[in-house]
Amino acid sequence: MDSASGLPTLAVIGATGAVGAVMLDLLSTRRDMYGEIRLVGSDRSAGRILRVRGRSVEAVPLTREVFDGVDIAAFAVPTPVAAEWAPVAAARGAVVVDGSPAFRSGPGVPLVVPEVNPERVRERPRGIVAGPGCTTLSMIVALGALHRRYGLRELVAASYQAASSAGRSGTDTLYAQLEKVGGDRALGNRAGDIRGVVGELGPFPAPLAMNVVPWTGTPAPGGWTSDEIAVRNETRKVLGLPNLKVSATCVRVPVVTAHSVAVHAVFEERTNQREAQEILARSPGVVLCDNPETHEFPTPSDVVGTDPTWAGRVRRSLDDPRALDLFLCGDNLRKGAALNTAQIAELVAAEQTG
Amino acid sequence: MDSASGLPTLAVIGATGAVGAVMLDLLSTRRDMYGEIRLVGSDRSAGRILRVRGRSVEAVPLTREVFDGVDIAAFAVPTPVAAEWAPVAAARGAVVVDGSPAFRSGPGVPLVVPEVNPERVRERPRGIVAGPGCTTLSMIVALGALHRRYGLRELVAASYQAASSAGRSGTDTLYAQLEKVGGDRALGNRAGDIRGVVGELGPFPAPLAMNVVPWTGTPAPGGWTSDEIAVRNETRKVLGLPNLKVSATCVRVPVVTAHSVAVHAVFEERTNQREAQEILARSPGVVLCDNPETHEFPTPSDVVGTDPTWAGRVRRSLDDPRALDLFLCGDNLRKGAALNTAQIAELVAAEQTG
Ligand SMILES: NC(=O)c1ccc[n+]([C@@H]2O[C@H](COP(=O)([O-])OP(=O)(O)OC[C@H]3O[C@@H](n4cnc5c(N)ncnc54)[C@H](OP(=O)(O)O)[C@@H]3O)[C@@H](O)[C@H]2O)c1
Ligand SMILES: NC(=O)c1ccc[n+]([C@@H]2O[C@H](COP(=O)([O-])OP(=O)(O)OC[C@H]3O[C@@H](n4cnc5c(N)ncnc54)[C@H](OP(=O)(O)O)[C@@H]3O)[C@@H](O)[C@H]2O)c1
Repeated sequence: MDSASGLPTLAVIGATGAVGAVMLDLLSTRRDMYGEIRLVGSDRSAGRILRVRGRSVEAVPLTREVFDGVDIAAFAVPTPVAAEWAPVAAARGAVVVDGSPAFRSGPGVPLVVPEVNPERVRERPRGIVAGPGCTTLSMIVALGALHRRYGLRELVAASYQAASSAGRSGTDTLYAQLEKVGGDRALGNRAGDIRGVVGELGPFPAPLAMNVVPWTGTPAPGGWTSDEIAVRNETRKVLGLPNLKVSATCVRVPVVTAHSVAVHAVFEERTNQREAQEILARSPGVVLCDNPETHEFPTPSDVVGTDPTWAGRVRRSLDDPRALDLFLCGDNLRKGAALNTAQIAELVAAEQTG
Repeated sequence: MDSASGLPTLAVIGATGAVGAVMLDLLSTRRDMYGEIRLVGSDRSAGRILRVRGRSVEAVPLTREVFDGVDIAAFAVPTPVAAEWAPVAAARGAVVVDGSPAFRSGPGVPLVVPEVNPERVRERPRGIVAGPGCTTLSMIVALGALHRRYGLRELVAASYQAASSAGRSGTDTLYAQLEKVGGDRALGNRAGDIRGVVGELGPFPAPLAMNVVPWTGTPAPGGWTSDEIAVRNETRKVLGLPNLKVSATCVRVPVVTAHSVAVHAVFEERTNQREAQEILARSPGVVLCDNPETHEFPTPSDVVGTDPTWAGRVRRSLDDPRALDLFLCGDNLRKGAALNTAQIAELVAAEQTG
């Protein structure tokens, strides 16, 4: 606890990354819950000056001592780094909030989305609380709201994932490829043309500019990707539905930031289009944007940089009164990562402050 | 019938459009089934010189007389033009093959995909045969093959539709927008930035460059789009399954040509991943491209300009042995339009020739 302010001390691990940058922005624009804030990067970033809460703060490298006196450690680093260092932070007394996949499926680690299962944050025998991945986070707040009314039974999801969920190198690669293809009208009419022009593929397994790539994550059994399996496991864990039927197809699209998901959800109860729209409209963390006649539906370019999950294209299935189709859109760096971590950290801070 | 060759006379109506251009290409590179070929455009294109079968042919405007002596009239024109002129052509004795939505749902008009229901081409009391829309055509050949083995019961589809299915103006708009956004790194991080830069929206209801737009077609009841309803009606009609459960979400993506669809299909019978892959691999008109470990899956930039439907990411549902998830990709101007029309015309030509 920060002795001057009586407020918790926060460390941001990975403050120099894509998610870290948004975290600093959130810490600067939301109600201030913290005393000291320590910013941590890799050795490469030691000494870099970052801005948070209107002040300059020097990034320090990741060491054991960095956690001394830290109450809450927010992790936004690659999985292996989180796997190694989160237990170190916890052993030194910090409550860890981790946004990486390292602990999401772990026993004794709650997987928390504050709008859906905030109570779980207190059940953390290992001192670690995890947040789901950005694809799950793009839909779970809206789905959770509909689940509370209708009882979710089955989920089919197809994603439209942005480049920045592959970190800074994802964003850099897409910009570089877009620069190369520009408005070149010779492209896009013959197979392979784009492959010959875009240059580096970066973290993607195929060209992303002027293309879509039906693969995100790493190979999992049965032809699935790790991201697709994660959507299934995380949705089940957050909603407390261990037998929920889930089929996801994860696809990367040439968008810089903001994920979208086309959702087909089957419920226990009969649904109603108007009522579902009202439920979404009044759910905290969700904005309903659903008036297609006047071209109102969420698109990534309209929601990037905003906090909520945007819901639109709400339709009741023509063939099953218990099924709804909808289109959800959210910023993968905000609710999909930094914001969810910040919200969990605030729940812990509120607990600690009294 | 062309008296010199004994082969049918073909008229291509809309020869100067996006689909028409691909039709001329197909007529030039496939086995020649026709005697005379007449090329028809609007008044605007009268006198334009087009190339087909290695020769120059002058485009003529659309008049009643254009159909004199025509055996087969392939229509690739906007819906109202087809609605008005297809009956004129049929009344003058031509068999009409129409790729527009004008007659797809009409009684007495067969909806034909030659790999799936070729026998239907002969049942044409109105002298008109229609082909489905490009979204249905991106999946129906692969789905039809799986249906024959397992019996399709339910279909959930999310599309990734290319700009060129909105015609030449769709393609032009996307290129112009890509030219404006180029690799501009200031874009894509704040809501509305892209909207301020892309300029004309063309036929799309929102910016398409660096974005995805969950809307194609016109408003239909219940919040659906005409395209989404068409996928349902056309799939039912082509497969002869009037009660098939179908939910589609149609989304435009910043790709010039080649549609993709993420498909979740539930069957009557238990499915098997390996067997489903083999069925697809040996189905005429389908290419299996499914080895994610070596980055083999279909993407639009790899399939554009090719004839078949490309199938990949074949997975059996982890929660339902009767369900398969897969990712399909096909050129919307080829199998999605011109090729399917050409194939139907060839069935009719073969009938007429003997
Ligand atoms: N991007 C998203 O949409 C998203 C969404 C949900 C979850 N996540 C998760 O968030 C985490 C961070 O993702 P990101 O997109 O922000 O990645 P990123 O842009 O590559 O940033 C990685 C951060 O981790 C730091 N780091 C790397 N190796 C380190 C080491 N050995 N020791 C200490 N710090 C190290 C980097 O510091 P330097 O700058 O010094 O290299 C940087 O601050 C990942 O676990 C990711 O799975 C990301
Ligand atoms: N693009 C696709 O992926 C796709 C897929 C499936 C089905 N379709 C259907 O195919 C049809 C053509 O689409 P498209 O993409 O090729 O459109 P397009 O590029 O706009 O071409 C339209 C064609 O129709 C002609 N035309 C327009 N008005 C006419 C009139 N009043 N009289 C005679 N000809 C006229 C145009 O001639 P001018 O050049 O002289 O204007 C041009 O040849 C549409 O019904 C569309 O729904 C398209």
